[in-house]
Amino acid sequence: MNGADALCATLLAGGVDVCFANPGTSEMHFVAALDRQPRMRCVLGLFEGVVTGAADGYARMADKPAATLLHCGPGLANGLANLHNARRARSPVVNIVGDHATWHRAYDAPLASDVEALARPMSNWVGSAETADAVSETACMAMAQAQAAPGHIATMILPADAAWGEARGPLARPRPAAFLPATRWEAVSAAAQAIRTTRATLLMSGGALRGRALEHAGRIAAAAGARLLAQQSNARMERGAGRVPIARVPYPVDQALASLASVETLILVGAKAPVAFFAYPGKPSALTPPQARIIELAAPGDDIEGALAWLADELGAGSDVEPRRAPRLVAEPPTGALTPDAIAVAIAAHMPEQAIVCDEAVTSGRDFFKHTAAAAPHDFLQLTGGAIGLGIPMATGAAVACPDRKVISLQADGSALYTVQALWTQARENLDVTTVIFANRAYAILYGEYAAVGAAEPGRNARRMFDLADPAPGWVKIAEGFGVPATRVATAESFSRVFADAMASRGPRLIEAAIA
Amino acid sequence: MNGADALCATLLAGGVDVCFANPGTSEMHFVAALDRQPRMRCVLGLFEGVVTGAADGYARMADKPAATLLHCGPGLANGLANLHNARRARSPVVNIVGDHATWHRAYDAPLASDVEALARPMSNWVGSAETADAVSETACMAMAQAQAAPGHIATMILPADAAWGEARGPLARPRPAAFLPATRWEAVSAAAQAIRTTRATLLMSGGALRGRALEHAGRIAAAAGARLLAQQSNARMERGAGRVPIARVPYPVDQALASLASVETLILVGAKAPVAFFAYPGKPSALTPPQARIIELAAPGDDIEGALAWLADELGAGSDVEPRRAPRLVAEPPTGALTPDAIAVAIAAHMPEQAIVCDEAVTSGRDFFKHTAAAAPHDFLQLTGGAIGLGIPMATGAAVACPDRKVISLQADGSALYTVQALWTQARENLDVTTVIFANRAYAILYGEYAAVGAAEPGRNARRMFDLADPAPGWVKIAEGFGVPATRVATAESFSRVFADAMASRGPRLIEAAIA
Repeated sequence: MNGADALCATLLAGGVDVCFANPGTSEMHFVAALDRQPRMRCVLGLFEGVVTGAADGYARMADKPAATLLHCGPGLANGLANLHNARRARSPVVNIVGDHATWHRAYDAPLASDVEALARPMSNWVGSAETADAVSETACMAMAQAQAAPGHIATMILPADAAWGEARGPLARPRPAAFLPATRWEAVSAAAQAIRTTRATLLMSGGALRGRALEHAGRIAAAAGARLLAQQSNARMERGAGRVPIARVPYPVDQALASLASVETLILVGAKAPVAFFAYPGKPSALTPPQARIIELAAPGDDIEGALAWLADELGAGSDVEPRRAPRLVAEPPTGALTPDAIAVAIAAHMPEQAIVCDEAVTSGRDFFKHTAAAAPHDFLQLTGGAIGLGIPMATGAAVACPDRKVISLQADGSALYTVQALWTQARENLDVTTVIFANRAYAILYGEYAAVGAAEPGRNARRMFDLADPAPGWVKIAEGFGVPATRVATAESFSRVFADAMASRGPRLIEAAIA
Repeated sequence: MNGADALCATLLAGGVDVCFANPGTSEMHFVAALDRQPRMRCVLGLFEGVVTGAADGYARMADKPAATLLHCGPGLANGLANLHNARRARSPVVNIVGDHATWHRAYDAPLASDVEALARPMSNWVGSAETADAVSETACMAMAQAQAAPGHIATMILPADAAWGEARGPLARPRPAAFLPATRWEAVSAAAQAIRTTRATLLMSGGALRGRALEHAGRIAAAAGARLLAQQSNARMERGAGRVPIARVPYPVDQALASLASVETLILVGAKAPVAFFAYPGKPSALTPPQARIIELAAPGDDIEGALAWLADELGAGSDVEPRRAPRLVAEPPTGALTPDAIAVAIAAHMPEQAIVCDEAVTSGRDFFKHTAAAAPHDFLQLTGGAIGLGIPMATGAAVACPDRKVISLQADGSALYTVQALWTQARENLDVTTVIFANRAYAILYGEYAAVGAAEPGRNARRMFDLADPAPGWVKIAEGFGVPATRVATAESFSRVFADAMASRGPRLIEAAIA
């Protein structure tokens, strides 16, 4: 067995059975090994940003890593922006980056670059299998690192000669999952005391926003009066009718400061103390009031559910306490102008149970969250690292992970154009994704930010950098060119009808919402 | 004047008056400064790979750098693959990368990353303007580094507070160009002696392939019998009827070895000793015969034209010696099946004088070079670093640099899909670019490489990673969606007619050549 076969077998033994890929010449032996392993599902992306973004979406929904297959330094470079987002989402990802044969490095061939240096900034762990015999053990390390709680980016470099060389040793054994660090009694006690005696907010992210952890938090809020708040951006939230409702820290700095102004104690549950997304002249970076006390109940890699259960117990918020739950409200389908609000209301009305909503709608999507609080229960996945171009790939990966659930991909037009090639993968794999393009023909966020920094009315140079008009992208043609059926709508009624139709059928669809 | 205004003024004073851009929030003050400077031409790319690839194409044709404007670490990361190609092309590029305000770095906001670490692998120089007062001097350094012969990638990080802070000092003065290193007599003498007494090949790249340098080389070949050969891949070659014809080292290793087998002396003129693009089991990395002697007449940053003039003089190849020149041959327009050869013949027949040909046709374009040796004189620009996704952006930048010349962009379909968003910039700027898509619906190179590494017949997993079918991308729709008129052709006659029509009109066009 060669190194490439050893890698395939080790990945499969570790439960990694999906590989998002865009291979090149230096990965041909690994491709041959994948070809001998029909258990490995290979999903092609037409650009590496598609590959890494799909791996992020997959990990968020599958709770385990996919492998990526990337070609040399430039292939990795093309995937870095979405690895940045995945790192911020704490998604487990195992990158396999092919590189030149070890002896070929010295020749500085045209495609040669410093793969390790490129990998480091967006990886939590980087390793290289310098020989065929090292491949299996390196892959086990990568899988263990990726899956160490709460989830990490592990990048494994695979020189071509390590892939094609004969691996003589036995395969390494994938490690079992590590135990989560135990919650400290001091933290639970301090949090309970703070909730009893101060205006306390639980700032939650990661596993705190799902399942039993969210239930515990809801009981704590109901029994002891603590306020629940989620980070501005989160990898995955379970929300909608019947679930414990939870607001988020707003994006605009002034609104964020206002939402936290009355906090006396901020209790972190898998979250970081909130900071402004960008700096602005004369505005603070840290959003917590300076006089507030911050207590970390559970770090992102801790046993978050266990910590919340203990805290609930300490506060007498046992299973007999009923948390507040979001009601099920079905809004009237909207009429008239096609505004972002009308789109949100229509989606709330029509989305099925257990939909997966991927949100990269940026400015147009800011009110979506509010309008869907009482919609059918769903998972809500956000852009975690601010690097646009995640949405369509993330929806692609989520659909691969959950073939039986409807994926709804909310996309700003500017962001969607970054990695629009992911539509092709949705067509190729016949994924059940409905993409809604909020077509405002602008990087609308920049008009707001331009005003926020105190600049004058935009002139020609500024407008030509903010506008996506002249020409406006033709979304129906672009989508159909990639094999995805598409429709353009310009009224609330037509959006509602076309969206309802998409929810009632299966397979990839795109709706260009020409918003007013 | 704030730091952003100082940057704009300094760039313009240094002759940098084109800015390929995709800005974000942290660059809003720089955008405002650009807005106050109508002399700066701002060209928007819908993805950063478009931005950096366009800067490469612009530099190759303008012989001076453009600025790029990139948003934080992820924006830079998206542009790295084409910076890799630009670095291999030795193109001068000045990157301006906006980053968080200096005091905001400590808070690890969602978009924060190590910009300098990301920049280093693909940059020859990296600097950061930590204060508004440092901006102008840092920009002068970046321009000087970018333009140091033969051309470099200079990356300047611009923290938001350096852009919006008040710059109190006077602007720094851009440096004049440095003198080129003088040629060494020993090298000229050794090269002349080798040409007289051995089977010598001049291996040429960079400036050796243009203008008077190429004429000198032609006279050396005519008078003294040296053979002329270009690197496999070059940033820019001047070729076609009336010019000194020059072959290239072939891409496939076995053919490359054969082409160099009889060399006794290899004389490097702005070129590197040739190496295999990839390593293969049992094949050498260095392509020069082990017994051959290698003499470096001129390094890439040396005065290449001066060195060739001196060598010609030493060999008695003065201006009275007439070099061999390519004849002007007009082939019959092809008929029948639409093969890559038929396309090349049709292009050779119809391309106008002084066209700029950008080649990223990969396997489909391998014979283009041969068929256009006697076409109208043209510039030929190649993929220099092997990172696919350069072609459409490079053609875009070349067209910005040379608005009066027709740009012909030869594109493999797989490569074209990497940065297809560049078509929109061609439409927005009404650039005179005709893109030919060699639509073979596959990463055809990988089928060849798969066989070359000795793998078996491709099975399902391999085929699904090599094929672009199921669904085949619809190029006419994709192009029209980005605002570029497009036509699909499937016979040699129809290609010839549509291509001739594109040559006779102006503005962006795309031809999907459904090759047989």
